[in-house]
Amino acid sequence: MFHHSAKLQYPVKVDKPNPEFAMLLQQAIGGVEGEIRVAMQYFFQAMGTRGDDRIRDLLMSTATEELAHVEMLGHAVALNLEGAPVSYQEATAKDPVMNAILGGANPRHLLSSGLSAMPVNANGVPFDMSHIYATGNVAADMLANVTAEASGRVLASRLYNWTDDHGMKDFLSFLIARDTYHQQQWLAVIEELGGLGAHLPVPNSTPEDHEATQHSYYYLNTLLDKEAPKGRWGEGPSFDGRSQFSVRNQPAPEGQEPTLGMAKEKSGAQKEQIDPSK
Amino acid sequence: MFHHSAKLQYPVKVDKPNPEFAMLLQQAIGGVEGEIRVAMQYFFQAMGTRGDDRIRDLLMSTATEELAHVEMLGHAVALNLEGAPVSYQEATAKDPVMNAILGGANPRHLLSSGLSAMPVNANGVPFDMSHIYATGNVAADMLANVTAEASGRVLASRLYNWTDDHGMKDFLSFLIARDTYHQQQWLAVIEELGGLGAHLPVPNSTPEDHEATQHSYYYLNTLLDKEAPKGRWGEGPSFDGRSQFSVRNQPAPEGQEPTLGMAKEKSGAQKEQIDPSK
Amino acid sequence: MFHHSAKLQYPVKVDKPNPEFAMLLQQAIGGVEGEIRVAMQYFFQAMGTRGDDRIRDLLMSTATEELAHVEMLGHAVALNLEGAPVSYQEATAKDPVMNAILGGANPRHLLSSGLSAMPVNANGVPFDMSHIYATGNVAADMLANVTAEASGRVLASRLYNWTDDHGMKDFLSFLIARDTYHQQQWLAVIEELGGLGAHLPVPNSTPEDHEATQHSYYYLNTLLDKEAPKGRWGEGPSFDGRSQFSVRNQPAPEGQEPTLGMAKEKSGAQKEQIDPSK
Amino acid sequence: MFHHSAKLQYPVKVDKPNPEFAMLLQQAIGGVEGEIRVAMQYFFQAMGTRGDDRIRDLLMSTATEELAHVEMLGHAVALNLEGAPVSYQEATAKDPVMNAILGGANPRHLLSSGLSAMPVNANGVPFDMSHIYATGNVAADMLANVTAEASGRVLASRLYNWTDDHGMKDFLSFLIARDTYHQQQWLAVIEELGGLGAHLPVPNSTPEDHEATQHSYYYLNTLLDKEAPKGRWGEGPSFDGRSQFSVRNQPAPEGQEPTLGMAKEKSGAQKEQIDPSK
Amino acid sequence: MFHHSAKLQYPVKVDKPNPEFAMLLQQAIGGVEGEIRVAMQYFFQAMGTRGDDRIRDLLMSTATEELAHVEMLGHAVALNLEGAPVSYQEATAKDPVMNAILGGANPRHLLSSGLSAMPVNANGVPFDMSHIYATGNVAADMLANVTAEASGRVLASRLYNWTDDHGMKDFLSFLIARDTYHQQQWLAVIEELGGLGAHLPVPNSTPEDHEATQHSYYYLNTLLDKEAPKGRWGEGPSFDGRSQFSVRNQPAPEGQEPTLGMAKEKSGAQKEQIDPSK
Amino acid sequence: MFHHSAKLQYPVKVDKPNPEFAMLLQQAIGGVEGEIRVAMQYFFQAMGTRGDDRIRDLLMSTATEELAHVEMLGHAVALNLEGAPVSYQEATAKDPVMNAILGGANPRHLLSSGLSAMPVNANGVPFDMSHIYATGNVAADMLANVTAEASGRVLASRLYNWTDDHGMKDFLSFLIARDTYHQQQWLAVIEELGGLGAHLPVPNSTPEDHEATQHSYYYLNTLLDKEAPKGRWGEGPSFDGRSQFSVRNQPAPEGQEPTLGMAKEKSGAQKEQIDPSK
Repeated sequence: MFHHSAKLQYPVKVDKPNPEFAMLLQQAIGGVEGEIRVAMQYFFQAMGTRGDDRIRDLLMSTATEELAHVEMLGHAVALNLEGAPVSYQEATAKDPVMNAILGGANPRHLLSSGLSAMPVNANGVPFDMSHIYATGNVAADMLANVTAEASGRVLASRLYNWTDDHGMKDFLSFLIARDTYHQQQWLAVIEELGGLGAHLPVPNSTPEDHEATQHSYYYLNTLLDKEAPKGRWGEGPSFDGRSQFSVRNQPAPEGQEPTLGMAKEKSGAQKEQIDPSK
Repeated sequence: MFHHSAKLQYPVKVDKPNPEFAMLLQQAIGGVEGEIRVAMQYFFQAMGTRGDDRIRDLLMSTATEELAHVEMLGHAVALNLEGAPVSYQEATAKDPVMNAILGGANPRHLLSSGLSAMPVNANGVPFDMSHIYATGNVAADMLANVTAEASGRVLASRLYNWTDDHGMKDFLSFLIARDTYHQQQWLAVIEELGGLGAHLPVPNSTPEDHEATQHSYYYLNTLLDKEAPKGRWGEGPSFDGRSQFSVRNQPAPEGQEPTLGMAKEKSGAQKEQIDPSK
Repeated sequence: MFHHSAKLQYPVKVDKPNPEFAMLLQQAIGGVEGEIRVAMQYFFQAMGTRGDDRIRDLLMSTATEELAHVEMLGHAVALNLEGAPVSYQEATAKDPVMNAILGGANPRHLLSSGLSAMPVNANGVPFDMSHIYATGNVAADMLANVTAEASGRVLASRLYNWTDDHGMKDFLSFLIARDTYHQQQWLAVIEELGGLGAHLPVPNSTPEDHEATQHSYYYLNTLLDKEAPKGRWGEGPSFDGRSQFSVRNQPAPEGQEPTLGMAKEKSGAQKEQIDPSK
Repeated sequence: MFHHSAKLQYPVKVDKPNPEFAMLLQQAIGGVEGEIRVAMQYFFQAMGTRGDDRIRDLLMSTATEELAHVEMLGHAVALNLEGAPVSYQEATAKDPVMNAILGGANPRHLLSSGLSAMPVNANGVPFDMSHIYATGNVAADMLANVTAEASGRVLASRLYNWTDDHGMKDFLSFLIARDTYHQQQWLAVIEELGGLGAHLPVPNSTPEDHEATQHSYYYLNTLLDKEAPKGRWGEGPSFDGRSQFSVRNQPAPEGQEPTLGMAKEKSGAQKEQIDPSK
Repeated sequence: MFHHSAKLQYPVKVDKPNPEFAMLLQQAIGGVEGEIRVAMQYFFQAMGTRGDDRIRDLLMSTATEELAHVEMLGHAVALNLEGAPVSYQEATAKDPVMNAILGGANPRHLLSSGLSAMPVNANGVPFDMSHIYATGNVAADMLANVTAEASGRVLASRLYNWTDDHGMKDFLSFLIARDTYHQQQWLAVIEELGGLGAHLPVPNSTPEDHEATQHSYYYLNTLLDKEAPKGRWGEGPSFDGRSQFSVRNQPAPEGQEPTLGMAKEKSGAQKEQIDPSK
Repeated sequence: MFHHSAKLQYPVKVDKPNPEFAMLLQQAIGGVEGEIRVAMQYFFQAMGTRGDDRIRDLLMSTATEELAHVEMLGHAVALNLEGAPVSYQEATAKDPVMNAILGGANPRHLLSSGLSAMPVNANGVPFDMSHIYATGNVAADMLANVTAEASGRVLASRLYNWTDDHGMKDFLSFLIARDTYHQQQWLAVIEELGGLGAHLPVPNSTPEDHEATQHSYYYLNTLLDKEAPKGRWGEGPSFDGRSQFSVRNQPAPEGQEPTLGMAKEKSGAQKEQIDPSK
């Protein structure tokens, strides 16, 4: 069950409101690198956790923190929209260029939300929940979480680099810090469960006889006009400790030519395609 | 530039067509764990690669291989739909239960595609390209790729476990094998570039003074009625070598109560909300 | 800022797991009538509240409760999937009908989530955040919230009517009760702010001279072959106290025929459409 | 069956074309507050009406009117795009600022539609039909309709406030007027059917023994650091006439801690999560 | 402006209700081959028509007819759901198979719409308006319309082939007939405007010097292991009368290797990717 | 199986990078008129081809070429973003206008992709695979392909008209040329299979007794206030050689008034709608 404190996790200040930066911040709310995504991803992973119960607690607890990040970002967006123009006249008084009054702003901050945050990204595209990755496999899920925090910190850093507002820089430095930790938190789960090597290949519960292992350790170079690039992917022991990496250049197909023959009657094809005896 | 061989990468056989398994296989084509996703993800990452050019080649070459996996899966779906009924009469002749003739099958395999594969998942939801993760940050992207291959191999293993068709099991054992390799291929890139530690926190180009580092190394336990679970995430050196992990239980908010005050005139609010002087 | 208790708001029991009911319950998680929707809708409305601060607290507090409803439903889905078959062989041992093994179940509960809940509806379509209605106008938002709770209770009642599982019926009776209250909670806000009449027409801040009031009070009957149905909508005082309702049958157009003329050169039209002087 | 008059319902004039306002108007066509939405919502509700047949006629008749509103808005968009630049050279001749030639305009008005309206919102996101709320429950549907007309009139008022074009203001004053009526039209249906009280809680056909009524009348304050705000939601008789409202502060969970135990074999989890006997 | 007759365009009868067929019919309502799509496509094309005004009238008039088709299909769905079970007990009384009670039915017909039609396809995926193709180029639009009617008639034929209900077959034979006409109606527009040849290549207003015409008339065979298939595409005069078709086998790239070099500082890349001088 | 050459199909140069043009080019990558769409459409049609195997080869070979077009466009986008500002300060140094720094650019090129291409359109909306039209009917599919190439060439021409960059114009002239050919390539398939007349109505395998042919050849004029426009659609022989076109003005409905009666008990309606005996 969830509870709420009326105060924000960390102070959020805006020195100089900027509707365009409100638009950019939306990516951290409703983008695939954003906070709704991690909040919901950890929440659903928590609800599906099987095995070590500590991991369920970690996931639920961090989902709860991420909701507080959404809340701070929502406030940051509203503060950046404070005083934004609501008429063309008001807008042109500030900026005489005729064709780009709303410029890089989100017109729906004006039209749809009454100058506050929306669950959309920086293009105004609503977040959709297909981005909640929760497989029921703890290794796959932890990797997904490290990935989410990595792209989240890339985004927060780009927002930090963009803005010259001190309030916003301070707030973003907090998000950058928490992403630093969360990347390592999920890696720590993998270490706690035995380390990455022990978990490869994911899922490590797949019996080896379900796998055509003769195809499990080579890099397939499909480039016709270049050799395979040299590197660790093509030589040395595999990370799962089962084999050696190698390279296969210019591979030839091993399968058949896929022909389906004529169509069945009543299948809605043209009569030229149909074999009536089928 | 791309080229094509008419033959499949690996043989695809179906012993006993099964429209329901055709539906399940769609997840490996158009699901978020599927092959269109990795093909397009590696393709777009390749096109945006900056830095070590070997990585662009790896990405493009593997994108090209994944397209061949889509092709095999598409053929597998069509073979599983071979001879599927196109009329209620034909269907009930095989199965007399009235209310579930189409059962677990995808009705659009009948209605929309003429008994062949579609770029949709096992619920019939079309794949959408928001799932192509390509950040321009090589560490974030490699982690995304390991994740994609991990969830892909989880899916292939579940499909293998489900089916009792020998042809399909053989084909899936090939996909499982390639996912084994690809997980490690992307990890090998990280190793080649200096190892995961050197890349943390992602992005490692963010200057430390952009970060509120006092918030970068503690686990925040937002659970009110439980202590933080004990584990590596709360103790020991951080993986980026900069600090020690710790735990903060029952955190109190540090920020303000976020109040926006009255609404602006002409902003479309109710008059009870509006401060006309604003 | 948010916090979490490890226990559920209300006990959730399943007497006899049923994968098909797991699929139906998804509508209450990821459907437009579901709990993610109200949680996020109240959350975003709270963040955008301007005017009476009590309403922000109500919204945030109830958003927080709705997250607990998602959590219970997520557990209910997982319990209904307990012991579900993971192979065709296991499935057919229970049910010998060949073409509908997975029948009304969600195949992605098997393939994608490892037998746990997903943020999707009963068709497997992911929830998308365009359904978060938060306009910044308190009357429009409260009406949206009553609507959401009304459709939510319709859904919970249908689920209750469908299932014959005592555990599930008990759990659903709790959701039905909370929806009973929440419908009235949002109506109480309208009453507290002066009653519905005082808020009509929404927004009540629109000056009357922005409105062609000669068109504000008649029912337009566009049906060619029937008189307008008789009822309160066509007679008696308007609810905003400004006029009387009336009926206009078989209305004639008052506007012009909308013709755009020829296309501009270089606009990508066919040359037959283009006027080169334009 | 539908019919059409070639003329518009109301005159649509644009004094000074403005591609940016064309973008804003799109919200009233393809936004969730827009006219396609209400047209289709009333249409589908009409087709599913059971009970009083007058309501079907009202719904279908008003759906038909809303289609005429889409038509007028479509013309308004095209008129605002009249003469818009189709080359960079033409654009920069009007406006010498290099980086924001298209500014707040929709680039797809140029690229995709040939300077005419599209079924998208002001961010260019296509309308999707998941927003058609039609539950088969007349009270839930009427509330949804009042809500739609309320947010629609908020939008029309914001557009009116924004523009300084006399033609557009006149046209929008007509839409504002019709939304005034339609809000009250749907409220009149509720009154005609016995008034809102008689319909609460929605659905009023749910037997009271399907409901844990001990949970039906209290406001749950999940805020940890604030008392529940005082107001009508926490005291006085309930609107359905069955009880009294009350407040429950700082609620404790009543349910269990939701633990799922170990995963099933062959379910695709990591082996660390699996209980082979399950 | 639109008007409505209360009666249907053509009689709709169902001899034996079938919830599964209700699900299949949804494809003709909310599928990409369905009637909402053509109604809205013709409507938006009409609103954007420039040039010959007759075409606007044809488009609007046929859009209006297609709305009547949606209406008939909506009624057909509701009739197929007449008497469908609303409880598990009622369902199992008819059908004792435990795992597939809802089988091929749409669970949201039960849960969300109250046994009536929804604007979704046969997978329950809502229709989205990105499928409204309206380019402002009359030839491209007419081709899109012929395509839509072709796929529409394929769908109607498949539905006809599937059902054994006489009422439904009669109704579908009407839809099949109208699609027969509408395919040819749009082809007749092309003929009326001078024939297909005169309109190629679309757009025919593109000046020839905007085109690298040396690349305009060969078939590019990218298959490595097969000759180009022989046929009209590789020989004979081009249909636009400007050249001869030919074949280019095993084409070599003519462009450069696309390398982006190092990343810019502050662009969020890893430091290994960054050139600080950039 | 697919292969790749490291070089591009055609040279791609940008004389003067322009972030706004990068945004416009996205329509040709991820728009419905774009290259991902045709690549995937031809790919899925190829996998579902039944009948003449030459057509499968044509489809797969051209799908492969279209992938190379995506690759060139992706490079063109990155080149247009070369040197784009990554901070507000850097941006305002170039352009002093405060409210439209990012103007017509895609903010996610900055925030999400690290200044490279994304699989989205010019509004930033991700491509979704519902746009892959592949019906299994060769005539419907070829028409869909001609349509796609027509709208693709309209788009390429508009991009050509817009830009004043010589490198981009040269590149676009190549795309325009290939679209010229591909339009005719798919028409050539229809000619090779007997010509369009022989394929009408699509599907030509539908038996004539599945069709209410008395409704197959008239234009239905639903306009109340105008006669049907005169033209080939209303007179002369039908293109399928079976009948003559005619016109039906002001049509009256032939069907019943669609009434559903009362709702079923336990169906979630209001009690006012319910007939308990049903």
